[in-house]
Amino acid sequence: MNVVILAAGMGKRMQSALPKVLHPLAGKPLLSHVIDTARSLAPAKLCVIYGHGGAAVLAALDSHKAQGGIDISAALQEPQLGTGHAVMQALPVLDDAAPTLVLYGDVPLTTAASLRALVEAAGRDKLGILTVVQDDPFGLGRIVRQDGRIVRIVEEKDANDEERQIREINSGIMCIPTARLKAWLGKLQNNNAQGEYYLTDIVAQAVADGVEVVSAHPSGEWEVLGVNSKVQLAQLERIHQANLARALLEQGVTLMDPARIDIRGELVCGRDVTIDVGCVFEGNVELADGVTIGAHSVLVNARIAAGAQIKPFCHIEQAVVGPASVIGPYARLRPGTELGEDVHVGNFVEIKNSQVAAHSKANHLAYVGDATVGSRVNIGAGTITCNYDGANKFRTVIEDDAFIGSDSQLVAPVTVGAGATIGAGTTLTKNAPAGKLTISRPKQMTIENWQRPVKVKK
Amino acid sequence: MNVVILAAGMGKRMQSALPKVLHPLAGKPLLSHVIDTARSLAPAKLCVIYGHGGAAVLAALDSHKAQGGIDISAALQEPQLGTGHAVMQALPVLDDAAPTLVLYGDVPLTTAASLRALVEAAGRDKLGILTVVQDDPFGLGRIVRQDGRIVRIVEEKDANDEERQIREINSGIMCIPTARLKAWLGKLQNNNAQGEYYLTDIVAQAVADGVEVVSAHPSGEWEVLGVNSKVQLAQLERIHQANLARALLEQGVTLMDPARIDIRGELVCGRDVTIDVGCVFEGNVELADGVTIGAHSVLVNARIAAGAQIKPFCHIEQAVVGPASVIGPYARLRPGTELGEDVHVGNFVEIKNSQVAAHSKANHLAYVGDATVGSRVNIGAGTITCNYDGANKFRTVIEDDAFIGSDSQLVAPVTVGAGATIGAGTTLTKNAPAGKLTISRPKQMTIENWQRPVKVKK
Amino acid sequence: MNVVILAAGMGKRMQSALPKVLHPLAGKPLLSHVIDTARSLAPAKLCVIYGHGGAAVLAALDSHKAQGGIDISAALQEPQLGTGHAVMQALPVLDDAAPTLVLYGDVPLTTAASLRALVEAAGRDKLGILTVVQDDPFGLGRIVRQDGRIVRIVEEKDANDEERQIREINSGIMCIPTARLKAWLGKLQNNNAQGEYYLTDIVAQAVADGVEVVSAHPSGEWEVLGVNSKVQLAQLERIHQANLARALLEQGVTLMDPARIDIRGELVCGRDVTIDVGCVFEGNVELADGVTIGAHSVLVNARIAAGAQIKPFCHIEQAVVGPASVIGPYARLRPGTELGEDVHVGNFVEIKNSQVAAHSKANHLAYVGDATVGSRVNIGAGTITCNYDGANKFRTVIEDDAFIGSDSQLVAPVTVGAGATIGAGTTLTKNAPAGKLTISRPKQMTIENWQRPVKVKK
Repeated sequence: MNVVILAAGMGKRMQSALPKVLHPLAGKPLLSHVIDTARSLAPAKLCVIYGHGGAAVLAALDSHKAQGGIDISAALQEPQLGTGHAVMQALPVLDDAAPTLVLYGDVPLTTAASLRALVEAAGRDKLGILTVVQDDPFGLGRIVRQDGRIVRIVEEKDANDEERQIREINSGIMCIPTARLKAWLGKLQNNNAQGEYYLTDIVAQAVADGVEVVSAHPSGEWEVLGVNSKVQLAQLERIHQANLARALLEQGVTLMDPARIDIRGELVCGRDVTIDVGCVFEGNVELADGVTIGAHSVLVNARIAAGAQIKPFCHIEQAVVGPASVIGPYARLRPGTELGEDVHVGNFVEIKNSQVAAHSKANHLAYVGDATVGSRVNIGAGTITCNYDGANKFRTVIEDDAFIGSDSQLVAPVTVGAGATIGAGTTLTKNAPAGKLTISRPKQMTIENWQRPVKVKK
Repeated sequence: MNVVILAAGMGKRMQSALPKVLHPLAGKPLLSHVIDTARSLAPAKLCVIYGHGGAAVLAALDSHKAQGGIDISAALQEPQLGTGHAVMQALPVLDDAAPTLVLYGDVPLTTAASLRALVEAAGRDKLGILTVVQDDPFGLGRIVRQDGRIVRIVEEKDANDEERQIREINSGIMCIPTARLKAWLGKLQNNNAQGEYYLTDIVAQAVADGVEVVSAHPSGEWEVLGVNSKVQLAQLERIHQANLARALLEQGVTLMDPARIDIRGELVCGRDVTIDVGCVFEGNVELADGVTIGAHSVLVNARIAAGAQIKPFCHIEQAVVGPASVIGPYARLRPGTELGEDVHVGNFVEIKNSQVAAHSKANHLAYVGDATVGSRVNIGAGTITCNYDGANKFRTVIEDDAFIGSDSQLVAPVTVGAGATIGAGTTLTKNAPAGKLTISRPKQMTIENWQRPVKVKK
Repeated sequence: MNVVILAAGMGKRMQSALPKVLHPLAGKPLLSHVIDTARSLAPAKLCVIYGHGGAAVLAALDSHKAQGGIDISAALQEPQLGTGHAVMQALPVLDDAAPTLVLYGDVPLTTAASLRALVEAAGRDKLGILTVVQDDPFGLGRIVRQDGRIVRIVEEKDANDEERQIREINSGIMCIPTARLKAWLGKLQNNNAQGEYYLTDIVAQAVADGVEVVSAHPSGEWEVLGVNSKVQLAQLERIHQANLARALLEQGVTLMDPARIDIRGELVCGRDVTIDVGCVFEGNVELADGVTIGAHSVLVNARIAAGAQIKPFCHIEQAVVGPASVIGPYARLRPGTELGEDVHVGNFVEIKNSQVAAHSKANHLAYVGDATVGSRVNIGAGTITCNYDGANKFRTVIEDDAFIGSDSQLVAPVTVGAGATIGAGTTLTKNAPAGKLTISRPKQMTIENWQRPVKVKK
C-alpha cells in the first residue's frame, strides 16, 4: 500500500505562526497522529505533501523518519491548487502495484481499524471511500447511491433537494488503485470558481470507467473530523480525551471524573489504579498495580511503582517512584529523581537528580538536589542541599540511617556518614563522620534591656 | 419490614481485586449506600447475601453493625445460582409477618423516598415492583400490563415486537409478602440456559395466585442504575455528584461550577458560602456562614468557622479553622490543627497537631508541628519547629505576642515566653525568656581576597 | 434614549444576605453587567430602581457613577408593587423626547447588539419587545400574533390550548415611546391575585391605541435568562464562561479544555497563547504572544510578557512577569512583583512588592519581599528577606550578579553589593560589600560519644 498525507494547508483560521498540521492534539502534532496511524498499516511508501510552514513540517518528519521501518518521503506542493493537485505531487514516489490511501494531516483521529476496513473493501481494483452518516450533513459532499452502489459525490452547492436529504457524506479519505489514480489525476479539470483540482472528481471518472466504488465506515463521526480552527481543535481534543478516558475505564482504572483527566502521550495502568480529578499525564507514564493519584497532579514521563500513593497537587517529571511510597501533597519530583521502596516525600519538598533509597523520608519544605541518599534516612524540615556554588554543581551523599536536623544546609561536595546525626540549623561544609552528632551552632544568648521595635508613623 | 440486599456478585467486569459492592461511590462502598438507605427505612431485619470476596464484605458489614440500632445479618450464597437463589439464602432470618424488600448491593442511588413509596404501594399482601420508564429499554425486562395491571415481566429475548416497544422496565427492586415469597421461591425452576433461579419469575406465580402486582416509580432512571463496570461506576459517580451539587445550590451555596465539585461524605454549609472550581470534600466537612473556598482546594474532615477565607490550593485535613481566618494559598493544615479567630496561615506553610490562638500569623514557608501557639504571635518565614529527634516527638510552646524571626529552628521541647523576640536564624534549644530578644548568631564576616568559583569545563 | 433598570427584587430564593442583583457573575455583580451593557448604548438617562438591600445597591452604583460619562440616577421602589409600579418610580427623570428601554438587574447577559436591534426596531413611536423562541415556553408569557403582528401577550395561566403551543415568549425587555409609557402606566390596573401593576399590560394598551408593537430577537435564549436562584446563577455563569472561552478560541487562543477555564474580568491574549486546564483569571489579565499558562494556575490582575512560561499551580496577583521568564510550578507572585526578562522563579517561592531584574533566579523555597534585585542574581534555596521586624517593613537591595547562598536571611534594611557572594546559612544584618564573600558561620564540630535518642515507650 502507498499512503499519501495531505499536509500543505495554511490553516489561516488557526491564527497561528505554527503550520496547522503541527498544532498538538493530546500533546502530539496533528500530522504525527496521522503518520503514526498510517505507519501501523505498514505501507510500502508514505509521502507527505507539504507546503505552508514547509521547514517546520520537514523538521517534524525527521523525527518520524528517525524511528525507521518505513519509507517516508515528502513532496512540496507549491502553489496549492487543490486536493487533486496535492496528490499529483506524490505520484513519482508511488508504487503502481499497490493501491494508494489518501489521508489528511488535519484529520487526526481516524483509526487504523477503519482504514484497514477501507483498504480491504477497495482491494486491488476498486475505489474505496470512507463515508460516514451524519446527523447534520450540511456543507459536505453527499454520497449518491443507486441500488446501493455509489454513483456520484455531489457537493452541497450542486445538490438538488433530494440529494440534500442524503446524510451519508464523503470524508475525503480514499483508497485508490494507483495506476488508475495516475490516469484519473491526469484528466482532472480545474474549471471551477477556485480554479482548483479536486480529488473528489476522480469518483465520476471511476464510475465512467466502470470501476466499482465501494465504501467503509468509521466507528464514529469523530474519526473523520478535521481541524480548521482552535474551536475545532478543542472539540477534537475533548473527543480524543473522552475516548482515552473510556479506554482506561474499560480496562478497569477508576477515574473520579472521566471528563477531567488529560492524557498527552501514553498512560499505562496496572490493576486497581485510581486517578482523582484534574490530573494531567504527559509523555510516557506508568502506574503500577494499586497506585492512587491524588487530585490535580501533573505527571510527565514518570514511573510509579505498585502501591505508591501520590497525594494531591504533585508535580512529577522524569522520575521514578518506588513501591508503597507516599508522595505529596505538593511534592515536586524533578528529572533524575529515583525513589526506592516506601520513601516518603512530603509537602513543599523538591527533589532533583537524586537517588533516595528505601524507607527514607523528606516530609517537609526541603530541597534535595544532586544527592545520593541511603536507606532509613530522615531529612528534616527545611533541609537544603547546596549543590551549586554559582558555577559548578556538586553531589551530596547521605548514608544509611543518617538523621539530618531541620534547616540544615549540606554544602556539596559533602558526605554524611552512616547513622550520623546533623543538628538543627547546621551548615555542613565538611564531611560528617558516621554515627556521631555534628553541629555548627552559635551559643544561644538573651539580650537584656532590649527594646522591641515600634511602629514608625509615616 | 425485612430487607434483603443481594451482594454476592463477582463483578468480573470491574477488573479489580476488590469485590464489586465494595467499590466506592462518593467515597463510600456501593453496598454501604444501600445499607444506609435501607437503615433509614428502619427494617426489623436486614440480611446481606454475600459470596465473592466474602471476608472483605463481612468486614465492611462490621462497621455498619457497630453503628447499632438494626439487626444486620449476612448469608453466604455459594455457589451463586441466580437472584432467586440468593434470596433463598436469607429466608431463615426473615420475619414472615412483615413484607420483604429486595435491594441490590450494586444499585447504590435508590432513594429512601422511592423505597417507601414502593413499600406503601405493596402493603401487606401485594407484590410491589419498582419500575421505571426508560428512553432506551433495550435488554431490560419489560413490564407487561393489561388494563393497567401488571400481568407479566418479559425479558428482551422472549419479548415479541409489541412487547419490545414497552418502555416501562423492571428495576429488580421488589417488595414481597414474605410468606408468599417463601412459597414462590420453593417453586422456582432453573430450566434456562444459565441454569439459574430468577427472582423475577415469582411475578408470574403472583399473578397465577391472584396476588395483585403493583408498582412504584423513582424520581429518575438513575435511582435504579446498577454498577457492573468502571464505566458505569464513573457515570453514577457523576450523577450522584451532580445531585449533591444541585442540593447545595438549592440551599443557597454559590458554586462556581456545579460540574467541578466532588463531595465524598457530608458537606454542611451555612449561608452565603462560596466554593470555587475544582474543590474536593471528603468525610465530614462544615463550612459556616460566609466561608469562601478557593479554587482547587481539598478539605477532609474539616470545620471552617464563619467568615474564614480559604484561598486556592489548600489542603486541610482533620483540622479546625477559626472565624475570619485567612488560609493559603498553598497552606496545608494536617490532623490536629486548631486555629483560633483571625489566624493567618500563608503560602507553603504546614501545621500539624497544633493549636494556634487568635490573631496569630504564619504567612510564609514554615513548619509548625506539635506546637501550642498563643495569640498575636508572628511566626516568621522559614520557621521550623524541630519536634522530632529521630525517636520521640516533643512540643513547642510559643506564648502570646511572641515574634519568631525568620528561619528560626525551635528545638522542642522548648518554650518561647510571652512577648519574646527570637532573632532571625536562631537555633533555639533552651527556653527563651518573656519579653526579651534571644538569638544564636555568629558574627558576620567578610572574606577578603576571596575568589568566586569558576565553571569547570568537563 | 432612557434606560430603566429594575433592580428592587429581594431574590428570596438566592437565600443570601446580599441583594440578588449584587450577586457576582464572572466576578461582577449582575446589576453591573446590565449597567455596563446599557452604558455602551450611550443613553441620555439611566435610572436604577432599587428596593431590597438599598444601601448596598446604592453603594454599587457609586462605582459606576465614578466612571462618569453618563447620568445615572436611582429611584426607590417601596413597597414593591410589580414591574409597572417599578417603572413608575423612574418617570420623573425620564426624557419624554426619547424612548425608554426597560432592562432587568437580574438578566445580565443581554448583548448590546440585541438591545440596539430592539431600539432600532421600535424607533420613535413603536413599542418594541425583545422576544425569543424557546423549546420549552412553559410558564412564560406567549407572544400572540395575528398576520405576523403582535396583538397580545398572554400569560401561561390565561392561555388557551392553542396559545400554549406558542413558543415565542416575552423577555420583558421593552423599548417604549416615553410619553406613551407615562400615559399607559397611569392607566395600569392591579386587579390581579398579587395586587401588582404589570408592565406587560401596557402592550394591550398599545394595541388599543393603535401603536404598532414590534419585536427584536437575541442571538440565543441565554441573553434573556434571569437569575432567581443559585441554580440559575450557576447555569448563567457556565453559559457566560462558555461564551468567553469560545471567543478566545475564535481569536486563536489554544484552550486545552474550553469547559475548564474561568474568566472573571478581562483576559487579553496575544498570538499563540496556550492555556491549560483548570486556570482561573480575575480582574485584568494580559497574556502576550507565545505565553503558556500551566494547569491549575490562578492569575489576578497580572501582565505576562511575550514568551513567558507559567508552569502549573502558580498564583499570580497584581504582578508583572517579564518576557521569556519561567515561573513555577508552585510559584506565588504577590502584589507589587515586577520581574524583568528571563527571570526564573521556581517551586515554593513567594515574591512580594519586589523588582527582580533580567536573568535573575530564585528557583527553590524562598521568600523575597520588599526587595530590589539586580540582574543575573542567584537567590539560593531557602533564602528569606527578613523585611518585617514586627512593627515596620524595610527593603532589601541585592545588586547585580550577587549570589545568595542557600538558607540565608537578609535582615532588612540591608544591601548586598554587586557581585557579592553570601555563604550558605548566613544571617546578614549588615551590608555585604561588593565582590566579596560574606558569611556568618559557626565552626562545624563533631560531638564524640554522643548517644542517639531512643524511642521512649509510653
